[in-house]
Amino acid sequence: MGSQLEKSPLAPPDFPCIPPVGGVRFSVASAGIKYVGRTDVMLAELSPGTTVAGVFTKSVTRAAPVLDCQEKIGLKITQGAAIIVNSGNANAFTGKQGDLSVKSITSAVSTHLLIPENRVFSSSTGVIGEPLPHTKITDCIHGLKVNLDASGIAEAAQAIMTTDTYAKGTYLSIQTEYGPITLAGIAKGSGMIAPDMATMLVYLFTDAKVEQTTLQSLLSEVNESTFNAITVDSDTSTSDTVLLAATGASKIQVNAESNEFRQGLHKVMLDLAHQVVRDGEGAGKFIEISVQGAIDDTDAKTHAMAIANSPLVKTAIAGSDPNWGRVVMAIGKSGAAADRDRLKIWFGDTLVATEGWVAPSYREEDGAEYMKKSEIKIMVDLGIGPSKSTVWTCDFTHQYITINADYRS
Amino acid sequence: MGSQLEKSPLAPPDFPCIPPVGGVRFSVASAGIKYVGRTDVMLAELSPGTTVAGVFTKSVTRAAPVLDCQEKIGLKITQGAAIIVNSGNANAFTGKQGDLSVKSITSAVSTHLLIPENRVFSSSTGVIGEPLPHTKITDCIHGLKVNLDASGIAEAAQAIMTTDTYAKGTYLSIQTEYGPITLAGIAKGSGMIAPDMATMLVYLFTDAKVEQTTLQSLLSEVNESTFNAITVDSDTSTSDTVLLAATGASKIQVNAESNEFRQGLHKVMLDLAHQVVRDGEGAGKFIEISVQGAIDDTDAKTHAMAIANSPLVKTAIAGSDPNWGRVVMAIGKSGAAADRDRLKIWFGDTLVATEGWVAPSYREEDGAEYMKKSEIKIMVDLGIGPSKSTVWTCDFTHQYITINADYRS
Repeated sequence: MGSQLEKSPLAPPDFPCIPPVGGVRFSVASAGIKYVGRTDVMLAELSPGTTVAGVFTKSVTRAAPVLDCQEKIGLKITQGAAIIVNSGNANAFTGKQGDLSVKSITSAVSTHLLIPENRVFSSSTGVIGEPLPHTKITDCIHGLKVNLDASGIAEAAQAIMTTDTYAKGTYLSIQTEYGPITLAGIAKGSGMIAPDMATMLVYLFTDAKVEQTTLQSLLSEVNESTFNAITVDSDTSTSDTVLLAATGASKIQVNAESNEFRQGLHKVMLDLAHQVVRDGEGAGKFIEISVQGAIDDTDAKTHAMAIANSPLVKTAIAGSDPNWGRVVMAIGKSGAAADRDRLKIWFGDTLVATEGWVAPSYREEDGAEYMKKSEIKIMVDLGIGPSKSTVWTCDFTHQYITINADYRS
Repeated sequence: MGSQLEKSPLAPPDFPCIPPVGGVRFSVASAGIKYVGRTDVMLAELSPGTTVAGVFTKSVTRAAPVLDCQEKIGLKITQGAAIIVNSGNANAFTGKQGDLSVKSITSAVSTHLLIPENRVFSSSTGVIGEPLPHTKITDCIHGLKVNLDASGIAEAAQAIMTTDTYAKGTYLSIQTEYGPITLAGIAKGSGMIAPDMATMLVYLFTDAKVEQTTLQSLLSEVNESTFNAITVDSDTSTSDTVLLAATGASKIQVNAESNEFRQGLHKVMLDLAHQVVRDGEGAGKFIEISVQGAIDDTDAKTHAMAIANSPLVKTAIAGSDPNWGRVVMAIGKSGAAADRDRLKIWFGDTLVATEGWVAPSYREEDGAEYMKKSEIKIMVDLGIGPSKSTVWTCDFTHQYITINADYRS
């Protein structure tokens, strides 16, 4: 299905060359769940000693595989582990049948890979409300096991795509005093959600040795300023999942105080988060919104997200209109503290508004010229406190309406 | 500018025939604030004894005239009063100059009509961030006074339009045991806001005799289930204003317990609220969303508004796609309580989903046929409590993107 859509104009040039991560092997299969002529299942096998952390959608209608992952994620077991993901069907809002499908898949993986069932994590993405034909997946597991390969991450990134117009992956080698640690990740997602087809799924792998509780707190913390700081259309998936597996194959221990690892993890997660936004449904422009001078971090992010989610701001940017009045409106409606007469707004380096009015130095031609770019930065200084936040989004275009109004019909 | 746009396909056939309301006179003028060849100022004169109540945008960046109205609205003065409204410029985010413009206009009306200045209420709607050329308005006030006419309400509704594709008005005669009371109102608004051009302004007039505190509590209460129960694009104006004036000309006293008056007011306000939604920017379908079985009223409305504001739900409806999965998604993300396995969803009379899955009786063809209608009802039963809420919205179309992405550029 993804092949019907042209590659996003904001896409990075190519999928990066990602070297193997010690302790991780991948394989893919074409189970024919919905798509024809492409892969739709990926399996990642994780060596004994691996710890796994996860963050998940907060939706109260979350899908069966998400509920299953959440039950398993905190268990203090360090035997081998596995992640199995299918595209084409989200197994969401499928009642008790959905739980049975998850059980069948994770049980089959457990049997074939000789891994405890509560160490098998699964995700599903695609159409919702239709029963997942899980035997098509369980039938593939023997083949998936046979084909496991340390260098298969690019194919894994392909297999999990739905409406994505390109596969998303990234890689970083962190130099520590004890040697190098490798961090790699893949992601899919093109609407923040489009329940028929999209959802955001992210799988991160490192050969560092990290205790589960440390891994979880690092992931949760870094997630706030990366995947929780992006929005495409303000809608939240029933399936969003981010898993981070640390195999320990490098034998290099990382603890909670390791800034090197935290910074590396942040870099990898932000790269993937930006790749998701750059593939936002119909996206023509990549937008960074920074808010500073807020009373606290929560207010800063509330304002930034209100601007990023405003249909009127996003349509103005689509039309290359330097419509700062809509930024003022979004700040006004966000519910967080602001003082109209202390607001400052910049488009790029151009001061647009100050002291409750258009800036005396601002010329509409400058704003209009800036807005023609494909990467836009909007900066707001609230002038009432010390806190700041940055979020990323894309514009709201005719193509978004076309994708989402015409998909199933 | 409004004339560039075709009349909404959801518009009522004609502006209603509204008889005079005792104690109210109207006039209009062409001040040339922005538009050419049309009226852009309306004045309503209210007889001595009139009480006035108001509800306003909660935006923290609200416009100068809103701040001025809010200061005056609670004053216990019953001399004559006046309402003056201009279109073409919102006098919003115009710094101290904006306050001076409001002062100049209300002072001029006070002088010409011999009404205390703190009884002159003003609104402005149109482009934001540009200084209001208020002398163009003050120059018209003598002429406005000369032309005051009890039967001028239709012209008043025309003068306050911006991107509206039709003038909005309604009228009701309430029979009480002491005789008839008249209620009439006009409104403008086509985006929930589009700061360049739109905003929601509503002016209601009655000849009932109502104490100010009673009038205010009635207006605030009824507003929750009428104007606060509609949404076009989730964006909130810096200028939204609803004023209700009770002249007392009928000599019929209304108190807080009067269900007749409350019900009449609800009917008039709901009619105008629906007229605003029917003129939603780019609207092709009028949508009613009812949520029942919620734990409390707040949760019911939170769910209903989450569905009504979801870009994915609104684009699906634009595409006549019976995409109930997106309704499940919106409930999941709303933040209010729900149980996936107790949800029931109906499109019109058709049960679509139940017990956490698609309803066994549901046939996709039935849903697809229903979604072709221009008036759509979505009903959700959460099954976990006694509370309910109904809200109204319109679909999200290519025309919305065109209007908002292309307007200023």
